[in-house]
Amino acid sequence: MVELLGISGSLRAESYCTAILKTLADSPGDMTNIRLFPLHDLPLYNEDLESLLPPAVTVLRNAIAAADGIVIVSPEYNHGMPGVLKNALDWASRPFGRAAISGRPVLAITASVAFTGGVRAHAQLNETLIAMACQLVVRPQSVVGGVHDKVTGGRLTDQPTLYFLRAGIGDLVQLVIASGAGQRAEASRRTHRGD
Amino acid sequence: MVELLGISGSLRAESYCTAILKTLADSPGDMTNIRLFPLHDLPLYNEDLESLLPPAVTVLRNAIAAADGIVIVSPEYNHGMPGVLKNALDWASRPFGRAAISGRPVLAITASVAFTGGVRAHAQLNETLIAMACQLVVRPQSVVGGVHDKVTGGRLTDQPTLYFLRAGIGDLVQLVIASGAGQRAEASRRTHRGD
Amino acid sequence: MVELLGISGSLRAESYCTAILKTLADSPGDMTNIRLFPLHDLPLYNEDLESLLPPAVTVLRNAIAAADGIVIVSPEYNHGMPGVLKNALDWASRPFGRAAISGRPVLAITASVAFTGGVRAHAQLNETLIAMACQLVVRPQSVVGGVHDKVTGGRLTDQPTLYFLRAGIGDLVQLVIASGAGQRAEASRRTHRGD
Amino acid sequence: MVELLGISGSLRAESYCTAILKTLADSPGDMTNIRLFPLHDLPLYNEDLESLLPPAVTVLRNAIAAADGIVIVSPEYNHGMPGVLKNALDWASRPFGRAAISGRPVLAITASVAFTGGVRAHAQLNETLIAMACQLVVRPQSVVGGVHDKVTGGRLTDQPTLYFLRAGIGDLVQLVIASGAGQRAEASRRTHRGD
Repeated sequence: MVELLGISGSLRAESYCTAILKTLADSPGDMTNIRLFPLHDLPLYNEDLESLLPPAVTVLRNAIAAADGIVIVSPEYNHGMPGVLKNALDWASRPFGRAAISGRPVLAITASVAFTGGVRAHAQLNETLIAMACQLVVRPQSVVGGVHDKVTGGRLTDQPTLYFLRAGIGDLVQLVIASGAGQRAEASRRTHRGD
Repeated sequence: MVELLGISGSLRAESYCTAILKTLADSPGDMTNIRLFPLHDLPLYNEDLESLLPPAVTVLRNAIAAADGIVIVSPEYNHGMPGVLKNALDWASRPFGRAAISGRPVLAITASVAFTGGVRAHAQLNETLIAMACQLVVRPQSVVGGVHDKVTGGRLTDQPTLYFLRAGIGDLVQLVIASGAGQRAEASRRTHRGD
Repeated sequence: MVELLGISGSLRAESYCTAILKTLADSPGDMTNIRLFPLHDLPLYNEDLESLLPPAVTVLRNAIAAADGIVIVSPEYNHGMPGVLKNALDWASRPFGRAAISGRPVLAITASVAFTGGVRAHAQLNETLIAMACQLVVRPQSVVGGVHDKVTGGRLTDQPTLYFLRAGIGDLVQLVIASGAGQRAEASRRTHRGD
Repeated sequence: MVELLGISGSLRAESYCTAILKTLADSPGDMTNIRLFPLHDLPLYNEDLESLLPPAVTVLRNAIAAADGIVIVSPEYNHGMPGVLKNALDWASRPFGRAAISGRPVLAITASVAFTGGVRAHAQLNETLIAMACQLVVRPQSVVGGVHDKVTGGRLTDQPTLYFLRAGIGDLVQLVIASGAGQRAEASRRTHRGD
């Protein structure tokens, strides 16, 4: 079983990005599970808190450690990645040299009501994932423009887009398997369960 | 009197960026005042909260409205702007079309213990300020590498760096005056005081 | 008279970007002239050539020195600015500290057949213009997506887009006047004519 | 035998980047060969020339097709990738969908006399390589600041830097082997030789 962690860059209840993630999680493909991790409870990053870690941060780090791969769906705010998402990645990237996210395969998707689809946030996200030594899925860029016309009833209903993004999940799963991340995560899950 | 708002991108108590800001605020130059605005109390950006705005957001927006210009000093995390800073800018950029930060003159400074000085965060910051229609100070880039060797006792003590950054504050003040932002902010202050 | 220099980032004869520039040059507005500068003859940037400058580089630098402002219309290739355009800007940025382009007001426009409109090239262009101490026009971003549907017969025929970009030229002219760049360029023109 | 293609982003005869490449090519490691490809002869990118391709472009594309992996060493000009390098990548990225560079493993290195080491050029290079579906080597970022103090006599003589970059070549070779790119390139070499 390939366990994927799904992260939305928007906290809005009716978020289009969260809707896309939920749609992908509804039918993640064979032997694959996508678990959503909402970012609402994370505090603002503050290195001073590393010595007495807020519980929400520990939960995030454990969730990443237990996952074989990560799928991020994010909007773009002010020509860049939302602060909400970057803040989560800043927490995830520590402690330096021992971050659970390092080496993890990641599929990055952006979606926007603007025609531009959030490609600037996507570029920033790529560079930050590279900084954290994540493995990026190499494929045609997963970007959704005019997303308000493609989501109805809290689900992504535009079939070509859905087909394309599901293929992206397939590519992520292949990268997980090829990189042996699945085995590493399985070992990590055992450790966290105390096996 | 030119009123500047100082924002540090780091929440750490001993932050080098905050130390630089405090040093600039100690001697801001003739007829100039720099007031620090800490970002600790801001919630994560969530558009759903716009209808019942958290008090800390209102305080931030009022502080920006009352300022003639803004000086930002930020570290770089994971090849980009800290989520903490971007989150504050995401709040500052709304409501769309009526954001107090639009049109404001801004001086952006980055500082890092790394030799690179945070120039990638600087580039992202520039683009986000452009997205919010801020006026950027045009000058040689204000970047401080190896900042841990330039700060002692909570103040920037490297004289060439301090001289260079103070000149940057001078350039910001000139831009405030040239753009008439001072007059607009004065009017705004009067409104907020109920004059 | 405000003299603007128009630069297209594409060398293709039927380039959409060049078509947009030509359309703007057809009706540049009152007391304004837009002269197109094709980049075809520029050599690849090589610092070794500074001592015996290729004529095409001298022509470019003189054209910039004689202009009050610059309007750039560029496509996006491979998620970035075309090498062709960056190469021209690399030549324009020297000699260091005495480059004619420093301080010049610039309006940047991107256009693309893709829905994304070239916003990543736009962000790179902004940062490079900042590096060269140009004055950026502060306005809603001038980006044209799906440009193949908006150009016919070698001219931009989509009226809302044309109206928006013409307003951008108006903003550029205002920045030229406000910054006194017109007077500086007039003096420069006199010098180059031997007045 | 793993065949790597080395590309320098600077055309200057005494270029620090070219010096680094030559040093790596002097001792490329076991069963590895690095062949330098100078960019001096490439024309400016112009899609109109695709139907009658300039010979230098054909030579570049064949060299990429025959290589198992690519190592790029680039300076940073005006906060970005040199136009010279981007122009080469623009040529390499075509024809769309059949570009030889797609899928190729690439190690990107930047070097600069500035303390910042060219990290902004590096970020742009990463994003362009992603756009072309290259496989990036995942490792601590290969960036050389203050390069003028680390090169003497046309070779990289700073031992810690050299050690670090040689390890990068080792990582590139491993990625070539892991991805089977070596076998694909071998087949491609046979085709180009008419085997």
